[in-house]
Amino acid sequence: MPVTRERLHRTLNPQVVAVIGDKKASGYTWLRSLQTFSGKLYSVQVDPNEIPGIEELGVENYASLTDIPERVDFAVCAVPRQVAPFIVQSCVDADVGGVTLFTSGFAETGEDLGVELQDKIYEIAAPSGLALIGPNCMGVHIPRLGVRFNRDQPHDVEGDIGFISQSGTHGMNFSLTGAANGLYCSSLVSFGNGIILEAADYLDYLADDDRSKLIAMYIEGARDGRRLFESLKNAAARKPVIVWKGGQTEGGGRAIRSHTASLASDQSIWEAVIRQAGAVAVHNLDEMVDVVKATLLAKRPSSNRLGLIAMTGGQSVVLTDAFEKAGWKVPTLTDASYAQLGEFFNIIGGSYRNPLDAAGTIGQAPEHLDTIFDILDADENIDAVAMELSATFMARRWQDKPEEFDRLITSIKRFTGKSKKPFLAALHPSHVEPEALQARQRLQAEGIPTFPSFERAANALRKSSTLAAL
Amino acid sequence: MPVTRERLHRTLNPQVVAVIGDKKASGYTWLRSLQTFSGKLYSVQVDPNEIPGIEELGVENYASLTDIPERVDFAVCAVPRQVAPFIVQSCVDADVGGVTLFTSGFAETGEDLGVELQDKIYEIAAPSGLALIGPNCMGVHIPRLGVRFNRDQPHDVEGDIGFISQSGTHGMNFSLTGAANGLYCSSLVSFGNGIILEAADYLDYLADDDRSKLIAMYIEGARDGRRLFESLKNAAARKPVIVWKGGQTEGGGRAIRSHTASLASDQSIWEAVIRQAGAVAVHNLDEMVDVVKATLLAKRPSSNRLGLIAMTGGQSVVLTDAFEKAGWKVPTLTDASYAQLGEFFNIIGGSYRNPLDAAGTIGQAPEHLDTIFDILDADENIDAVAMELSATFMARRWQDKPEEFDRLITSIKRFTGKSKKPFLAALHPSHVEPEALQARQRLQAEGIPTFPSFERAANALRKSSTLAAL
Repeated sequence: MPVTRERLHRTLNPQVVAVIGDKKASGYTWLRSLQTFSGKLYSVQVDPNEIPGIEELGVENYASLTDIPERVDFAVCAVPRQVAPFIVQSCVDADVGGVTLFTSGFAETGEDLGVELQDKIYEIAAPSGLALIGPNCMGVHIPRLGVRFNRDQPHDVEGDIGFISQSGTHGMNFSLTGAANGLYCSSLVSFGNGIILEAADYLDYLADDDRSKLIAMYIEGARDGRRLFESLKNAAARKPVIVWKGGQTEGGGRAIRSHTASLASDQSIWEAVIRQAGAVAVHNLDEMVDVVKATLLAKRPSSNRLGLIAMTGGQSVVLTDAFEKAGWKVPTLTDASYAQLGEFFNIIGGSYRNPLDAAGTIGQAPEHLDTIFDILDADENIDAVAMELSATFMARRWQDKPEEFDRLITSIKRFTGKSKKPFLAALHPSHVEPEALQARQRLQAEGIPTFPSFERAANALRKSSTLAAL
Repeated sequence: MPVTRERLHRTLNPQVVAVIGDKKASGYTWLRSLQTFSGKLYSVQVDPNEIPGIEELGVENYASLTDIPERVDFAVCAVPRQVAPFIVQSCVDADVGGVTLFTSGFAETGEDLGVELQDKIYEIAAPSGLALIGPNCMGVHIPRLGVRFNRDQPHDVEGDIGFISQSGTHGMNFSLTGAANGLYCSSLVSFGNGIILEAADYLDYLADDDRSKLIAMYIEGARDGRRLFESLKNAAARKPVIVWKGGQTEGGGRAIRSHTASLASDQSIWEAVIRQAGAVAVHNLDEMVDVVKATLLAKRPSSNRLGLIAMTGGQSVVLTDAFEKAGWKVPTLTDASYAQLGEFFNIIGGSYRNPLDAAGTIGQAPEHLDTIFDILDADENIDAVAMELSATFMARRWQDKPEEFDRLITSIKRFTGKSKKPFLAALHPSHVEPEALQARQRLQAEGIPTFPSFERAANALRKSSTLAAL
């Protein structure tokens, strides 16, 4: 019996959650992570030595799932592998909506015992319609409801990214690094070996989920490639879809067999499938964060011609190189723009040909930045605008003159509020990493897409520009 | 009269320095930056309104260079462009060793007046043998002597990198970002329009400079390409040389004309010239810092086969992808290694095929890391070792258990102390950027080459591996 959409929806929008087998040796990590859950949390544990610690956390403990006085929507199973089949059976018996099997030691080990136990779990779960997530996974993270598998994950925040991960680490790292970049998930599922529900099932669900404006995924392999392609294509027709395929190389392919027991296949096939489905491929966590950020926060450019604002001559060269290497053109501006720029631009130690080397001019009068933005907005040779922000300058000046940083943000928001052209900021952390982090956090609180290098900004804008608008 | 090596040596090892034209409006930036200078510092300023501020800084001021009671080795000229030719003449008259012209507004503006003034300066300086650096540059930074052009630059530290930059920004950013990464310059010269001394002159000087173990440069163009090639080849035969060519694209080429008045030429020619000279090409500041770091701190591998230690299954896949994409191979280990690893390795939630997914095993007993290192050191299939360090783990555990971090460093240093194989650490900042920065600083204080992403580690080791050992 296939898992119904209703069953998966119940699992991913739980009102009652149970943790099975949490223990002191692991610091009651599941129960602690789930302290932020907005619904009712229960524990199932039979070891009398573990129960006082659980009760100290204020969690009611029961000897079995069927003893819990409410119907459980979502269960987390953290028991040894030999016990896992019995727990799955009790989830079926108790009409649990879905369960994630954190437990590992199955087909990914390559051992006979592991394969045998995994088959047993499949045989119990498959006919029942239980939404079984895993095994060998971290399960579910829903910031809105406080459902977490790690105590650093965000909670009490409405996210808009549906994230699907075959790896617990990459799911966790996206939720954490994403949050540090102002990006939050609607639902995040880490599904590991994916013996019942696999990537295509989650894609189908998230394609129809209104909370998820965008879908991002980390995948290592698929049992049914054709089905995954159809699900990708369907999802990408409805919202932006970003895919990170792990195991892109021969060695990486061997690594995924040990990790999630997936079979490797040629990376070029994957890249073609992703492109033909209308999704976009990324290749590591940083690129995933960057492309999600640009997709959510920047507009889509009508073509690939860029206006660049740098703070020094040296940076104007390097900023231009970075964007042109990523497929952008940095053209000359129209004569009308040059006539206007020539009226106020300081060309000693500066230049306005595009790239604009503008620190001296903006330093003389901050309102010049508004004029520059207006000129670039009106210029027909330009489809998008990117700007270098100097971390050094911010660390030195912002401390003394916070009104200058406020003025900069006001100018940027004035431009992004009225222009149809996308805007990106590049803020290299330089040697003032803590101050650059503060500045980035301030910019992202204002919804300004900010990247830690020119290359990352250029690549993020290019990849997001092929995706549908939100 | 060409500038002699002795004259340039005197300029770059000054005992007496003079700043000409510093003023309150710029916050006396030159005199303040040079407060750390270990020799005698003078000021030249004729404006009576400026002199009290200079004297408040404890600097003796004179009305002209020739009035200074000592012979000046190195002068900084920060006067308006119309005055610059007169200052250059007075440097000649006062037998100054060398002068940097911070002043800009010359050929790089494309204006007739700017070109004319630059020609005038050339005519005064060229016959005199004056070591004229610039114009349109930031000049000289020598941490050892406290010679600086920015107040954040390091001082009182012996550096081993000779850095040549046609851009003031990139010279400054390397000195700052480098220092934040534990990398310091022996001499750094920013030479801007380079009308007298150009890149080849500085290369020749640094090739013979024993303090400079490595030469790194940012360049936009050369008047005499053949001469630059010969100088590069000569330098690269003696020590590692790393070259960042700015203006790699059409738009970037247009930007360098506005920046240093250099002529663009085809990037593929530059790449070929750099390679044929025996140097290595990099393409941005981060890559420069990474490759310098790997070149100075890691050994050279005998071939391209890598042993990888990751902390989770998901990271083992991604770490492998990053290194194989950069040209490394992550092969299976020898049977002897597998026999040893099989005795203690925890394969539930772990794997030792290479990549090694080792957190569980090391967590059980930290001495297992020493055993893993010993096995990889002895394994004939492996030429180098890279390891993922988890920022999240460090932020959580290191705060509570600093002895675990000490133990990790001891294990790494035990391995790097005895093995001929290079070692690199990758520490992604994740969502705990301040803690990751602290951990990186601790690792770099121990001389352990640490990189903020797998890709950057893989690329740095690959590029440095083609260079001569130190």
